[in-house]
Amino acid sequence: MGSLRIAPSLVTELSTIDSMSKPGGPFSALRSAYLSGATTPVEQAERVMAELAGRDGGPVWISTVAADDLRAHAAWLTRHRDPADLPLYGIPFAVKDNIDVAGMVTTAGCPDFAYRPAEDAPVVRRLLDAGALLVGKTNLDQFATGLTGARSPYGSCESVFGGGLVSGGSSSGSAVAVASGQVSFALGTDTAGSGRVPAALNGIVGLKPTRGLLSTAGVVPACRSLDCVSVFATDVADAVEVLHAARGVSTADPWGRALPAERASGDAPGTLRLGVPRAEDLEFFGDEGQSERFDAGVRRLSTLVATALPVPLDDFFAAGDLLYQGPWVAERLVGLGDFLRGHPDSVLPVTRTVLETGWRYDAVDAFRGQHRLRELRARVDRLWREIDVLVVPTVGTTFTLDEIAEDPIGRNAMLGRYTQFANLLDLAAVTVPNGFTDGGRPASLTLLGPAFSDLTLARLAAALTAGAEAPPVVAAGDAPPAAAQTLIAVVGRHLSGESRNGELTGRGATFVGAARTAPLYRLYRMESPDGEGLPGLVRVTPDDPQGQPIDVELWSLPSSTVGELLAGVPAPLSLGWVRLHDGRDVLGFLCEAYAAGPPAVDISAAGGWRAYRQAAAGR
Amino acid sequence: MGSLRIAPSLVTELSTIDSMSKPGGPFSALRSAYLSGATTPVEQAERVMAELAGRDGGPVWISTVAADDLRAHAAWLTRHRDPADLPLYGIPFAVKDNIDVAGMVTTAGCPDFAYRPAEDAPVVRRLLDAGALLVGKTNLDQFATGLTGARSPYGSCESVFGGGLVSGGSSSGSAVAVASGQVSFALGTDTAGSGRVPAALNGIVGLKPTRGLLSTAGVVPACRSLDCVSVFATDVADAVEVLHAARGVSTADPWGRALPAERASGDAPGTLRLGVPRAEDLEFFGDEGQSERFDAGVRRLSTLVATALPVPLDDFFAAGDLLYQGPWVAERLVGLGDFLRGHPDSVLPVTRTVLETGWRYDAVDAFRGQHRLRELRARVDRLWREIDVLVVPTVGTTFTLDEIAEDPIGRNAMLGRYTQFANLLDLAAVTVPNGFTDGGRPASLTLLGPAFSDLTLARLAAALTAGAEAPPVVAAGDAPPAAAQTLIAVVGRHLSGESRNGELTGRGATFVGAARTAPLYRLYRMESPDGEGLPGLVRVTPDDPQGQPIDVELWSLPSSTVGELLAGVPAPLSLGWVRLHDGRDVLGFLCEAYAAGPPAVDISAAGGWRAYRQAAAGR
Repeated sequence: MGSLRIAPSLVTELSTIDSMSKPGGPFSALRSAYLSGATTPVEQAERVMAELAGRDGGPVWISTVAADDLRAHAAWLTRHRDPADLPLYGIPFAVKDNIDVAGMVTTAGCPDFAYRPAEDAPVVRRLLDAGALLVGKTNLDQFATGLTGARSPYGSCESVFGGGLVSGGSSSGSAVAVASGQVSFALGTDTAGSGRVPAALNGIVGLKPTRGLLSTAGVVPACRSLDCVSVFATDVADAVEVLHAARGVSTADPWGRALPAERASGDAPGTLRLGVPRAEDLEFFGDEGQSERFDAGVRRLSTLVATALPVPLDDFFAAGDLLYQGPWVAERLVGLGDFLRGHPDSVLPVTRTVLETGWRYDAVDAFRGQHRLRELRARVDRLWREIDVLVVPTVGTTFTLDEIAEDPIGRNAMLGRYTQFANLLDLAAVTVPNGFTDGGRPASLTLLGPAFSDLTLARLAAALTAGAEAPPVVAAGDAPPAAAQTLIAVVGRHLSGESRNGELTGRGATFVGAARTAPLYRLYRMESPDGEGLPGLVRVTPDDPQGQPIDVELWSLPSSTVGELLAGVPAPLSLGWVRLHDGRDVLGFLCEAYAAGPPAVDISAAGGWRAYRQAAAGR
Repeated sequence: MGSLRIAPSLVTELSTIDSMSKPGGPFSALRSAYLSGATTPVEQAERVMAELAGRDGGPVWISTVAADDLRAHAAWLTRHRDPADLPLYGIPFAVKDNIDVAGMVTTAGCPDFAYRPAEDAPVVRRLLDAGALLVGKTNLDQFATGLTGARSPYGSCESVFGGGLVSGGSSSGSAVAVASGQVSFALGTDTAGSGRVPAALNGIVGLKPTRGLLSTAGVVPACRSLDCVSVFATDVADAVEVLHAARGVSTADPWGRALPAERASGDAPGTLRLGVPRAEDLEFFGDEGQSERFDAGVRRLSTLVATALPVPLDDFFAAGDLLYQGPWVAERLVGLGDFLRGHPDSVLPVTRTVLETGWRYDAVDAFRGQHRLRELRARVDRLWREIDVLVVPTVGTTFTLDEIAEDPIGRNAMLGRYTQFANLLDLAAVTVPNGFTDGGRPASLTLLGPAFSDLTLARLAAALTAGAEAPPVVAAGDAPPAAAQTLIAVVGRHLSGESRNGELTGRGATFVGAARTAPLYRLYRMESPDGEGLPGLVRVTPDDPQGQPIDVELWSLPSSTVGELLAGVPAPLSLGWVRLHDGRDVLGFLCEAYAAGPPAVDISAAGGWRAYRQAAAGR
């Protein structure tokens, strides 16, 4: 590929212009050509074969579909199928060579491990059923263990941007096949970042769906409980189309999960609360250019969302560290242990070194690690009440093949810093190009959200890459009517982290923000059986100089559950109107004045229940 | 206890009759006595102490609350709390001694392991907040490892039915304390059946909630990923009340899960599809009496449900086998391994033998076991599309203490055959008495369903134990979403024929009747833009001689529309609790006290808004 350096928007333009010469690129150009009759799958198959012949194989492909088979498939589509009927009609694609295609060898990057499956993996089958045109199986870091693209006996992939830059891995061939226009999309897998790091290093989109949305049946397991099938494409809308065509719960796959209907459209970017890492949590390994690109990307993103908030990343990193510095390496040995013992010399030395650390852990370590992860996940889950999306750099820096060879394990870990926690924490992720550093290296952002936020992430990613005027990536017909919400001000035990907060979150309430009342209230501490006291908010008349502002939190609650919530809150509390500091009246918990006399104590001076409790604890 | 054999219905009757002599028994009898003033928590505490003194400790209790502390708590409730306000006011209860109570030693059945926690477990705290009266900490199989009740250095519990029958375990003392009427309910824990087997052997109800509904913070871990806090009571409705009072997600507990609002009521028995084990999957270990009782119970159950279908149990049993014949024993060593290594002689030989098997497994075994469980769970999940509830015998047979001593591990496993899969498969369970065999041994059924089916199971269990005409076990506030109604007291413009009455009738509300408040209110006429005036109901303190009864109307409103109704009613009105003349608290419109000053006029003397308006019109 040489060392061509081009901005992402230019890549897209070139791909469009070239769509009749290069077989890959965005779906839209090819689809228009099919619908207008300007081309056919048969012609497209010839273009694919010419393109691959011109490259003479190379390290991108481990195997390709036989020319006669490709022609036959294209001819069948051309003759018997209608481009208007099939969502992926005639779109050429590649499959990472740890995913089964019936009749083609699956190597997982290890020739001695290879087998020839009789059945397609369900995820491949669905794409074929949707009309996509399979081109071949792509290179990968052996057993999908690695993030560099330099751990394969089939050769090391170089980034499409050249200059000796690694392609990233483990889905190296799939990313390069898409970025170089050989196919329009490709399947990868992602256990620790293998669907994101190579997207970053090749300037394309990488979608790591919520675990289970794409079936991992027929995929060589890495860590089965974490493995995802991922999608590479040149734009976000195309990746989402592949997700929708490929997803589905298969009875053969105990790890499958369905996308809840209410999440099938995602939220509009303008409604989102974006989490931005605190400066002290960002590590670019001295790469100023990546740091500058990240800042620029965040500035752009911030203009698209409702709010941007700084968030700490320590719990994310602690979870990520468990993957290779904890018992999960042993999970890779569930499938590979017998092979590794029987054929030690068939495995690359670096891969063997990594895998063999899995023997060190006993079952107690495994459960202890899972308990630790549960704690971290619970903490991160609380963060998702305050933000909807987290943005991180996909990689902190980039490396050449020579640099990786100097320190293959240490630098691999550096590439995974912002990716490997996602799988352990059950997050969805979308990786998008973010321009180039002054030094000409590609930069990339990853948007992360909790399980099933895939479409929300995709909509924000689409807005970021294509401008705010981009069309939504989801058909309007998918959007369910929004449930009516009621804003409620809470003052005491319903606050975040307090004992009755679950009565809100358990009903699907979401945290809106902290606020204060108008200076019209007194706050009392009433006696309670547990000795903690029960707070009560009582309004005074406007001319009463005793009126104080009191800290509250605002929560958005499905309106249909307000009655239930109220039914669980005892006298003397009631639900009425609370005047906020900004003049708004919102519903909130009030206390009847009769209960404010002794033994209740006036604690208004503290300014709020949480401040009062902290002061009381400090005494 | 001797060898008294009585049918379950008789047990219930006797408990009711005896409710003034035995401190335990169903909540309803005690609650009526509190509400009518026939007894007080102070008197009840004395009964509890007399009952315990008469038994002279024995193996049921490991520690009891000091007499002065019990009296002080009861006195506080009696003086400062209202039986109508607190759901568990003055109900005596016990806590298994692997659950923390602040200031009392937690032994987990191992004296050398004991520690004195500074804080209550959240689940205990919530019960105390609800007014329940803690009596003490109960005996258990050491480290909650065992199902017999015969694995404790504090002595072996005998079943309440005597004859040398084991109590079952591990929550042995909790079950016996409830069955013998010493307390009205007790907390146990359940990792493999410890909340069900002892319920079966003592003829009471055992509720093993969905994992996470009751917080396991402050509980000595057995298998943390499987542990549940469970509830013992003499009837199903009582167990459900405890569940609702005790549940809640605590930020201290990463394992907590909230009950989805739409599952808070459960499904009606008549709508359910019941799964009945195929004959070839049932194993009673030669106990014909248990087999006959099971068949009789299934026949009775089948009359209560929509359909009954035969189902295979092999996937359930395969999952259950993983618990002790798989890596999960190692999970117990996460918390106990260091203690076991450091103090091998402090642990009972049988317990040590079981726990030490956990060292045999490596991390690869742990992950392999989890993958296998995932496959089984996926298969069982598919079964839940065909049935709603599965019925099994709680135990296939029963044993005496001598029989257990002959084969402590083998017969323990026989007791767990129908219980231990539930935790691994993430099921909820309710265990209920099912009569007695001709040989006089207690029989029991367990109803099982997927996570969050707790209330569905409870409703069926209540119908089974109390007859099809039984009242629903669900509190009004939790009533089913479709039919859920909320009773509302209206005082002014929402009255029949008044200007805002359409806000009720337009939402499908129905008129229930006229009523009066307790003599605790003042009624004000506030100014309104239309000149008609706006009534406001303000509560006064009980000792205020100005308190008046005020005429109201009661309306029944679909609960889901309460939020909307409230949103249309302006400040200073709110929706809170109105005490009626008959002592009931119902939701109703209140007025904040700040708005009752001039120019508002006190119109309490009229006795109600309609009377006031008629008098005003006549002037």
